[in-house]
Amino acid sequence: MGLQIVGAGMAVPPDVETADDLARKINTTTSWIIEHTGVSRRHVAAPGADIAVLGAEACQIALDGRAPPDLIINASGAPRQTLPDSSVFLQRMLNLEGIACFSIHASCMSFLHALHAANAFLVSGNYRRILISSADMATRARNWKEPESAALLGDGAAAVVVEHVDGPPGLLDWRMATWPSGAELTEIRGGGVHRHPNDPDTRREDNMFHMEGKATYRFVRPHFLAMLKELLTANRLAPSDIDLVVPHQPSAGGLSLLQRVGFSSERVVNILPEYGNCCAASLPMALVSAIDQGRLSQGATVLLMGTGAGISVGLTLVRW
Amino acid sequence: MGLQIVGAGMAVPPDVETADDLARKINTTTSWIIEHTGVSRRHVAAPGADIAVLGAEACQIALDGRAPPDLIINASGAPRQTLPDSSVFLQRMLNLEGIACFSIHASCMSFLHALHAANAFLVSGNYRRILISSADMATRARNWKEPESAALLGDGAAAVVVEHVDGPPGLLDWRMATWPSGAELTEIRGGGVHRHPNDPDTRREDNMFHMEGKATYRFVRPHFLAMLKELLTANRLAPSDIDLVVPHQPSAGGLSLLQRVGFSSERVVNILPEYGNCCAASLPMALVSAIDQGRLSQGATVLLMGTGAGISVGLTLVRW
Repeated sequence: MGLQIVGAGMAVPPDVETADDLARKINTTTSWIIEHTGVSRRHVAAPGADIAVLGAEACQIALDGRAPPDLIINASGAPRQTLPDSSVFLQRMLNLEGIACFSIHASCMSFLHALHAANAFLVSGNYRRILISSADMATRARNWKEPESAALLGDGAAAVVVEHVDGPPGLLDWRMATWPSGAELTEIRGGGVHRHPNDPDTRREDNMFHMEGKATYRFVRPHFLAMLKELLTANRLAPSDIDLVVPHQPSAGGLSLLQRVGFSSERVVNILPEYGNCCAASLPMALVSAIDQGRLSQGATVLLMGTGAGISVGLTLVRW
Repeated sequence: MGLQIVGAGMAVPPDVETADDLARKINTTTSWIIEHTGVSRRHVAAPGADIAVLGAEACQIALDGRAPPDLIINASGAPRQTLPDSSVFLQRMLNLEGIACFSIHASCMSFLHALHAANAFLVSGNYRRILISSADMATRARNWKEPESAALLGDGAAAVVVEHVDGPPGLLDWRMATWPSGAELTEIRGGGVHRHPNDPDTRREDNMFHMEGKATYRFVRPHFLAMLKELLTANRLAPSDIDLVVPHQPSAGGLSLLQRVGFSSERVVNILPEYGNCCAASLPMALVSAIDQGRLSQGATVLLMGTGAGISVGLTLVRW
């Protein structure tokens, strides 16, 4: 029995902000933004827009009239609110009562952990049809005083429906690891009990995205390379055996590393110029884009991968 | 192969607040507090105390010098901060680098979903030793204008280490479900992207606990009764066959329902008077208390159960 993605969908808010629009807000030039981040445009949620509505839009496309799932996993970077869990509001938008739902949170690697958990639940026979949704409105936390991260972020959502079907395993192998010594390199310090919103010492900047881009890249690079080598070796694969790489979309610099380790650019899904870094939604958005463009043929060997705040690295090998 | 809890620990902040202490803060009497909530005292984290330190204290007791886990699941009600995930800070406190970690969030039912996910990962052979930690500082979100919920909440943490061992399945069966039509009955509306901390329209109350206690009870009661009946029937069990019930600790009223459905009080773990409702940490704290008191003998049939914001109901049948 193998995990199969039987439905997939993505959704973005209607409003587009171009590099031109943004250049004025962060007092820089269009060419600086594109050169430093690789992002030409991003979708930005309107004030008051509900993340559950955006997420549900992607879920409806993924479900495509199928019978309801018996489990919903929200796998986003930030919650809608503290309590109840974000998955509850997604379930409500889908008009579903009385099914199981929860969130898995691991910043930009949330979708991969959720995919692994879904696979394990399906293998164990605990659930039969699982909806995984990743939706983030990262632009809500942009800090104009940090032009590079502010120019990277965008809003979006993606969802998949997974089931087990007869056939070889869909999920071949994975490697997931986090190095907390890099925890401060990419952060939103507020929003929880540590720098609580009502704490008078909590500053506005604590609730905004903070990223030391170059330091993050230098920190994560050796870990990523070692884990990639280990995964490929364990599965007797060379980079040229991977038919498609579906990465998180951290930045142009982050994606360029993939070419340097042997994944030619036509085998790497790159939606960064159009959507920016949409936090946990980026990886499944790249996956859904590839599916919609017919870039995944049956039997293809696919590498889902990325890095995230933590600092974390995730690599998941899939047989399509 | 069966899931086994091989280590367990709990921790609470040193400061105790009695019903007497609290009566003055919410302008009521000691007897009103005890009568309406069943909570005689609760532990309250000092200002600035770090939730990761509290969680790690429980984890260290659960690990008890064992080899490190290969996965840490944080299963708490509220996060430490928005990014990175709370599990990263727990991993750091445990001096572990390069292992996998993420959070599962489902308000007060987080621990049960995490236990199910851990079981599925162990069954599937994905991980071999999993640390599950639930730590909440619910008192950070007390609203003095809502005396009943403010008098219920306390702070605490509990952790378990789970492995697979030869023998019958440890996790026999479960039922988990959420009814989003009750989402507004128990809430902390802020802390996420919806009523973002930096949004000028976000009020202080949005970041505080709000609970309509009686309405929540009336809403959840029929769902709980139906699910309990279904679980017991499916497993050919009567309430008298359950050796120990380990419930979430919502309130004295919530716990009293258990007696009315046939679980005699000596078979129900009740730590509410001493610790209050510690959100997601309550259920595993009750479990660890029962283990520490020798109330779980090998082969015992144990029902872990509870309700949570959502509104959610969770029931997990365990063979000890």
